[in-house]
Amino acid sequence: MTDASDEDIRHSEKKKRIQAARQKIMAGKTGGEKGLIIVHTGKGKGKSSSGFGMILRAIGHGMPCAVVQFIKGGWETGEARVLRDHFAKECQIHVMGEGFTWDTQDRQRDIAAASAAWEKAKELIRDPAMRLVLLDEINIALRYDYLDVDAVVEFLLTEKPPMTHVILTGRNAKDELIEAADLVTEMTEVKHPFKSQGIIAQAGVEF
Amino acid sequence: MTDASDEDIRHSEKKKRIQAARQKIMAGKTGGEKGLIIVHTGKGKGKSSSGFGMILRAIGHGMPCAVVQFIKGGWETGEARVLRDHFAKECQIHVMGEGFTWDTQDRQRDIAAASAAWEKAKELIRDPAMRLVLLDEINIALRYDYLDVDAVVEFLLTEKPPMTHVILTGRNAKDELIEAADLVTEMTEVKHPFKSQGIIAQAGVEF
Repeated sequence: MTDASDEDIRHSEKKKRIQAARQKIMAGKTGGEKGLIIVHTGKGKGKSSSGFGMILRAIGHGMPCAVVQFIKGGWETGEARVLRDHFAKECQIHVMGEGFTWDTQDRQRDIAAASAAWEKAKELIRDPAMRLVLLDEINIALRYDYLDVDAVVEFLLTEKPPMTHVILTGRNAKDELIEAADLVTEMTEVKHPFKSQGIIAQAGVEF
Repeated sequence: MTDASDEDIRHSEKKKRIQAARQKIMAGKTGGEKGLIIVHTGKGKGKSSSGFGMILRAIGHGMPCAVVQFIKGGWETGEARVLRDHFAKECQIHVMGEGFTWDTQDRQRDIAAASAAWEKAKELIRDPAMRLVLLDEINIALRYDYLDVDAVVEFLLTEKPPMTHVILTGRNAKDELIEAADLVTEMTEVKHPFKSQGIIAQAGVEF
């Protein structure tokens, strides 16, 4: 099992690099401003919409920002339309999750879609002009192992410019990501009308 | 104690009216679209920003909307600026909490500020053209009894037009409001950099 052993060594080395990067970052944390790794997770609502709220806030502050959509959802009809129509200069929108099928019928296509989204995300985060990047629903791609969480965490800890904020949304955030993050909020569903009242999803609330 | 007794009777009658209104609404809940009473509470972040995300979404759908700020906070420098500069026609912004002092040194002034904000809120919610009204940080005013929660709940249940969504944000949402609401999300703080790392509040994240 030479392959497995090699992989074990690579895994161990990767973990060590991540740990070293985290220690270096923590050593420099003596207060003041810094770009944050922000996670919105949990089963409740508001994970993506609070990300978009922060995008709106960033635009208000004149901070260049971007959104990468990892999973095809309904939101492009609302938030993304406004951002595209009014703030194409201030905020880049990349809808990358078109190929995601939400099932395992075509896992390779899902992996390809997630990988393409992550490549775009890295390019945006590396851009020194960028101040806030929203990686919408990336946690779904991480959960299904369409992306390697260690690779994502290592990139964020080692290559994210110090003043750039990155928001990662989606339920079931992986422990490795939560450990690496600066700010983690869990949205908990206390009461939901679609279960208790038979109300359908509707424009302006759900998408 | 005639006064107390009168008040008890008034209180009892008010509770009965609220209960009747709720029963009437629940009886009509057989599915389909409806305007929701939405609460964002909890100690975590994202309560206001997800409200603003929904405002952005509403604008994207061409739904007339409005924001009433109950507590003077930092956000007017970010989200509100964008909304004012770009969407004055689509979204009304009312910063009403200027007088709120966050202490009890001038309780009457706080009550006056909260009452003025609530009067404006009622006017906006009653407007049949309006589709989404964000009552930002109203829960703070309710918590300190600067507003009567029964009066707020009764208004929402009896006077809110059926297709209008109202979002009420702020920590420590009162039980009466949660009971009346259709959709309640609690934002829970899992990890916060200002406590664990001494990072200061900063533009684009905190305000």
